[in-house]
Amino acid sequence: MSEARTGAGTAKSGLTIALDAMGGDRGPEMVLPGAQLARVRHPDLKFLIFGDESRIRPVLAKRKLLAECSQVRHTPDVVANDDKPSVALRQGRGSSMRLAINAVADGEADCVVSAGNTGALMAMAKFVLKSIQGIDRPAIASFFPTQRGESVMLDLGANVECDPENLVQFAIMGSIFARAVLGRAEPSVGVLNIGAEALKGNEVVKDAANRLREVPLPGRFHGFVEGNDIPAGTVDVVVTDGFTGNVALKTAEGTAALMNEWLKRTFRSSIFAGLGYLLARNAFRKLRQRGDPRRYNGAMFLGLRGICVKSHGGTDARGFANAIDVAVDLVRHGFNDRVVEELGRYSELRSEISQAAAGTP
Amino acid sequence: MSEARTGAGTAKSGLTIALDAMGGDRGPEMVLPGAQLARVRHPDLKFLIFGDESRIRPVLAKRKLLAECSQVRHTPDVVANDDKPSVALRQGRGSSMRLAINAVADGEADCVVSAGNTGALMAMAKFVLKSIQGIDRPAIASFFPTQRGESVMLDLGANVECDPENLVQFAIMGSIFARAVLGRAEPSVGVLNIGAEALKGNEVVKDAANRLREVPLPGRFHGFVEGNDIPAGTVDVVVTDGFTGNVALKTAEGTAALMNEWLKRTFRSSIFAGLGYLLARNAFRKLRQRGDPRRYNGAMFLGLRGICVKSHGGTDARGFANAIDVAVDLVRHGFNDRVVEELGRYSELRSEISQAAAGTP
Repeated sequence: MSEARTGAGTAKSGLTIALDAMGGDRGPEMVLPGAQLARVRHPDLKFLIFGDESRIRPVLAKRKLLAECSQVRHTPDVVANDDKPSVALRQGRGSSMRLAINAVADGEADCVVSAGNTGALMAMAKFVLKSIQGIDRPAIASFFPTQRGESVMLDLGANVECDPENLVQFAIMGSIFARAVLGRAEPSVGVLNIGAEALKGNEVVKDAANRLREVPLPGRFHGFVEGNDIPAGTVDVVVTDGFTGNVALKTAEGTAALMNEWLKRTFRSSIFAGLGYLLARNAFRKLRQRGDPRRYNGAMFLGLRGICVKSHGGTDARGFANAIDVAVDLVRHGFNDRVVEELGRYSELRSEISQAAAGTP
Repeated sequence: MSEARTGAGTAKSGLTIALDAMGGDRGPEMVLPGAQLARVRHPDLKFLIFGDESRIRPVLAKRKLLAECSQVRHTPDVVANDDKPSVALRQGRGSSMRLAINAVADGEADCVVSAGNTGALMAMAKFVLKSIQGIDRPAIASFFPTQRGESVMLDLGANVECDPENLVQFAIMGSIFARAVLGRAEPSVGVLNIGAEALKGNEVVKDAANRLREVPLPGRFHGFVEGNDIPAGTVDVVVTDGFTGNVALKTAEGTAALMNEWLKRTFRSSIFAGLGYLLARNAFRKLRQRGDPRRYNGAMFLGLRGICVKSHGGTDARGFANAIDVAVDLVRHGFNDRVVEELGRYSELRSEISQAAAGTP
């Protein structure tokens, strides 16, 4: 496998994005219109489209702008949504997902975007792209709405159990992500815990917090945060293990769904309430836009030697275009180069601290 | 320390509730009006009120109904909200909280309700009341609103790390709780995980699920649930470790706060939206009642040889009365006796299974 690209070097001459056209509930009928939208936003994009040519060609024929900047690569196989990651890894060597990832590893593309099976995508991306040197475990990150704009949380499910060093690496990657994608100059970072007091929580989060206090981050270490701090937007970057992060994210999604359901029932509960909704309709349109899941589409696999973004499988063209946007931001900001730099700085400082500690009688 | 009462035996002749009058942000000014409300609902209640007599007497003087069924026990000390549990345990022997718990251990009261420092209350209750035989670790449980009525979740923070057997014990206690307080005849129980598939998750949840599949519960074992299933109400009882449960509960609270803030801004964003709100005002009053945190007030310490309910410190009289209601339900349904019974049944079945397994060549 050749050296994976970290993207920054190709920023001047336009970007090439490898697309898994077969991922997501609707495959090429969603992926290609999404790519067309992204192309309108970023005129220097090029696409390598992997998938079933007989399904891709008719969709592409209707989209001249996209057709002009795309190459289609026919792939015989597809990774199904219910394929186990291990099976996909062994049997999916000819799949659209795998060949799109290979394109990044081979230097043909700057990044890959897929709306397919998350577990399979993570397994393949880890296998093909490998981890950045100094990152023990890649993580899944995503951003979400808060009372104070947008924040990012990681890990969201790639690593069920984490050690303190994993969490420190997540903190570094999260800060660089918040700079690159959210535009925060000095992102604040919090470690998710069950109490703001330093005494609470398990040994892993306490140890991680101690390391983050010792060594300056690319951002600013805030300390511990609790579950309610996630939607409050207390910090720009929430660091946690994949089990807790996944539960927190899905609990937030479920709570939003519950509140929306209650709101609907409220407006349907009387004629007056229904009239009230009609009057407030325009305002509610804006509210829906604010919480629109398409705005927060895109789970990033951070820590791999290549940019890989997972779109929600059930999203539409606009949501998929947003996932492409995130990939473009990460490549343009040289995300992986920054991570390598900051990891280097971190290990130097850590070893200085250890030496100093060893030197003390 | 004498045998703690499990409550069921005293149901016929009225209930005695030990109150920590000094707990919560407002102390007796909130606790006593709450007790008065509870007394109106349950005419057979009696109260033992622990706290600073000079603050209790004036409030009681204005409440004849409550005064008639109450005894005041003056206590010199108070556990502060920021006292560490270990310090409260050592130095708070004369506190209202400690003496109220002692009243349950001594058989003077059927249960204790406090709005004070959660950590201190848990530490003291564990020390004084001890665990039910067969329960390795007491848990904190609470109920919450869902798309399908109310559900209960435990643990919410008493045990940062749990083994499979702890989770099985939580499942048993949670089912009995759902019967006693939520009135579910055959409660469904789910173990919180990051994927519904049996392969995902850590070893602890997988092992717990296997044990719950093997041995019939007082309720019905549903299998794994994810974060979004909590507010969806997929199951009546959500079982998890204290770290994950605490994060999930607080994330849900924070998300509800975020949505409420967005809703407020929506109605304030234009004159039409404001008029719409006026028309829908009555419907929104009902919506607020549905999500009213006072309705879900009361965190139960399950697994102790004595009923102990923690009210939110910032609640009002109505919220505190609801916490008393929960304590009354638990005592009336003989909660602890049911737990002892079901634990006995469970260990018998487990040992039969082990013997059968050992007998197989």
